[in-house]
Amino acid sequence: MKRITILGMALLMCTILFAQQALWGDETIVSPEIHEDNTVTFRLRAPKAVKVEVTGDFLAPQKIETQFGKFDMPGRVELKEGEKGVWEYTTPEPLASELYSYTFIVDGLQMNDPANVAMIRDVASVTNVFIISGDRGDLYKVKDVPHGTVARRWYDSPTLKEQRRITIYTPPGYENSKQTYPVFYLLHGSGGDEEAWIALGRTAQIMDNLIAQGKAKPMIVVMPNGHTQNAAAPGESAREYKPAMGGGQREAVASMEDSFGDIINFVETNYRVKKNKANRAIAGLSMGGMHSSAISAQYANTFNYIGVFSAPPIATMMARNNEESAKYAAEFVKKLQVQQKNGFTLYWIACGNTDFLYQGVLDSMKKMDEISFDYTYRESDGGHIWRNWRIYLTEFAPMLFK
Amino acid sequence: MKRITILGMALLMCTILFAQQALWGDETIVSPEIHEDNTVTFRLRAPKAVKVEVTGDFLAPQKIETQFGKFDMPGRVELKEGEKGVWEYTTPEPLASELYSYTFIVDGLQMNDPANVAMIRDVASVTNVFIISGDRGDLYKVKDVPHGTVARRWYDSPTLKEQRRITIYTPPGYENSKQTYPVFYLLHGSGGDEEAWIALGRTAQIMDNLIAQGKAKPMIVVMPNGHTQNAAAPGESAREYKPAMGGGQREAVASMEDSFGDIINFVETNYRVKKNKANRAIAGLSMGGMHSSAISAQYANTFNYIGVFSAPPIATMMARNNEESAKYAAEFVKKLQVQQKNGFTLYWIACGNTDFLYQGVLDSMKKMDEISFDYTYRESDGGHIWRNWRIYLTEFAPMLFK
Repeated sequence: MKRITILGMALLMCTILFAQQALWGDETIVSPEIHEDNTVTFRLRAPKAVKVEVTGDFLAPQKIETQFGKFDMPGRVELKEGEKGVWEYTTPEPLASELYSYTFIVDGLQMNDPANVAMIRDVASVTNVFIISGDRGDLYKVKDVPHGTVARRWYDSPTLKEQRRITIYTPPGYENSKQTYPVFYLLHGSGGDEEAWIALGRTAQIMDNLIAQGKAKPMIVVMPNGHTQNAAAPGESAREYKPAMGGGQREAVASMEDSFGDIINFVETNYRVKKNKANRAIAGLSMGGMHSSAISAQYANTFNYIGVFSAPPIATMMARNNEESAKYAAEFVKKLQVQQKNGFTLYWIACGNTDFLYQGVLDSMKKMDEISFDYTYRESDGGHIWRNWRIYLTEFAPMLFK
Repeated sequence: MKRITILGMALLMCTILFAQQALWGDETIVSPEIHEDNTVTFRLRAPKAVKVEVTGDFLAPQKIETQFGKFDMPGRVELKEGEKGVWEYTTPEPLASELYSYTFIVDGLQMNDPANVAMIRDVASVTNVFIISGDRGDLYKVKDVPHGTVARRWYDSPTLKEQRRITIYTPPGYENSKQTYPVFYLLHGSGGDEEAWIALGRTAQIMDNLIAQGKAKPMIVVMPNGHTQNAAAPGESAREYKPAMGGGQREAVASMEDSFGDIINFVETNYRVKKNKANRAIAGLSMGGMHSSAISAQYANTFNYIGVFSAPPIATMMARNNEESAKYAAEFVKKLQVQQKNGFTLYWIACGNTDFLYQGVLDSMKKMDEISFDYTYRESDGGHIWRNWRIYLTEFAPMLFK
């Protein structure tokens, strides 16, 4: 006699509980389907829809003209309706190995792919994701290697007078060793929170894989929330969430820069870390890049490795051109001179050549050249997008603490 | 002169980056709007839609008739189209203090509320959530109290021959004390994974709040993945994800019950815990409830507190009525007799009176009465839903380790 298992009973339960689905005519749709040649088919059952589109970073971006100049927007393409109201689109070309995100747009409304269980939250929106294997995409996959731990913790910030949520990656083996580790502070952009680098940034997978391959040293990665008007990501805070864009109050007791000492203090009193400049790195994307340059200048002799991704190291070089921003830039250049004198191992600036901040990055470097500031520049294709930030992380992390 | 801050620069950046939204006619919609009297208005801009509905647990469930009997399905109600294509629905009555989840259905397609940043993933679907304050809902909110840590870790399972992902809540102060703690193993249902109790279950918020109020003892809560055919939640595993329902292979090297010793071993060698029966509890919902009764019977003298939520403690009492299930039940009753003899502090069975497993729970208890098994029964309103499981957790946790 076959042994009755709990799983077997649970499956019977499912059959009962989900029997009603059949009443509603549910049928299995495969989407996205990654074909052997790495072309991809997207499918959605939407019998009443007039127009179904898919938008995502696997499509070439559309150029949009605004009063501020030309910008890249995610591309979108129409699906065609086939049998039984199932809409379909297949990419004409194979896709390169990458992690891609996408959503459907049905008669103008954005929605997730009900057939794809892989979803990532990016602040206030959720996108579906898929990975094309074979090359770079493999770095973003969960592989059969030792895994680090990802903890959501709360630290006390005396400067901001509150508890704040923070995400911390500790490398494989941290819990069972007596070793001390170097620390990498990794900061999100204005559209992110303390979940951003873990979600679309794939930091845990990237670090696990780079460490397993011997390409990066085991290190602790600290991902705080860079919006001082919020204590945590949406839904995770005692206070009402205040979006960075689109209005709402943004009052905060102090800035990210001025309160950053609280984070360093928390990490260095709560983790087994090497507490010196040679073992501290800081990097960030967009707003987090500007935070990284500002914090590494403000906290003298604290960081040996600085990464500024898709942002002008001199914040006001991005767009403004007025007396106020010129004064800020002049003051910041003085700080950079002190930073240069104090010394560091790596100051790494990376930007995509279609990024809307590209010119600001070039202008910043021009200013930095004038004072012979010792940075390294990495230019990539593409714009202000996660694909680039994941690439920068995979290139920056291996250079740390060597 | 006003000081230029990075946040200020980032906001300027947002203005540029999101300027194009204006081109697409975006305007602020407030949804859900919780009015002073706790009625709630839902809104969605969908100018091309023919029919917009909202479905959620704030609505009375619909009774559905199937071949297996009558079951509760989430209620749904239509929104009315108003100006500028904005659809609206206001609840006729105030809602009681609770955490509610909902999604829109636009011309038959389920979609999230783009105006609500609060979202929770439940395996393969994402729902929006909101909390009505004032009473029970307050327990599910992040409050300004000391917070525990939630870590996603990987443990080695020699029985299942793989690394598996696990979620572990450690109470406030764990990291900075030398104290040892009791351990509560908390198991999800067949539609869940190692994220379920943290997400819709609100375990971190409930434990933080109960501990802060002095109602629950500080304890470690261990939330493993109960599907041995998967090593982790969707997108978090090296292997392809295999859903519990709807086909797909379900081969696993061993069952959850037989591999549970690996989890106990991991926790007791990696955390500062009290390693005895008096300081171990196990509970679960649905499949996890059946796991809890099976595991607490199989691992003799291991657990002093057992919770079976919305599931028959004797698994086969739920639906089947054949020789095979009668034999399983008879064998299990023998195990229960041994468990009764070994002794325990609390065996807590909880079920909603419209749950589709209700009769199975009653039938189990009848069998248990025949052997004078010493359980406690808690019956609630409602069916097989998260509202009940959160309530059971808030009632069960305070009874532990006292």
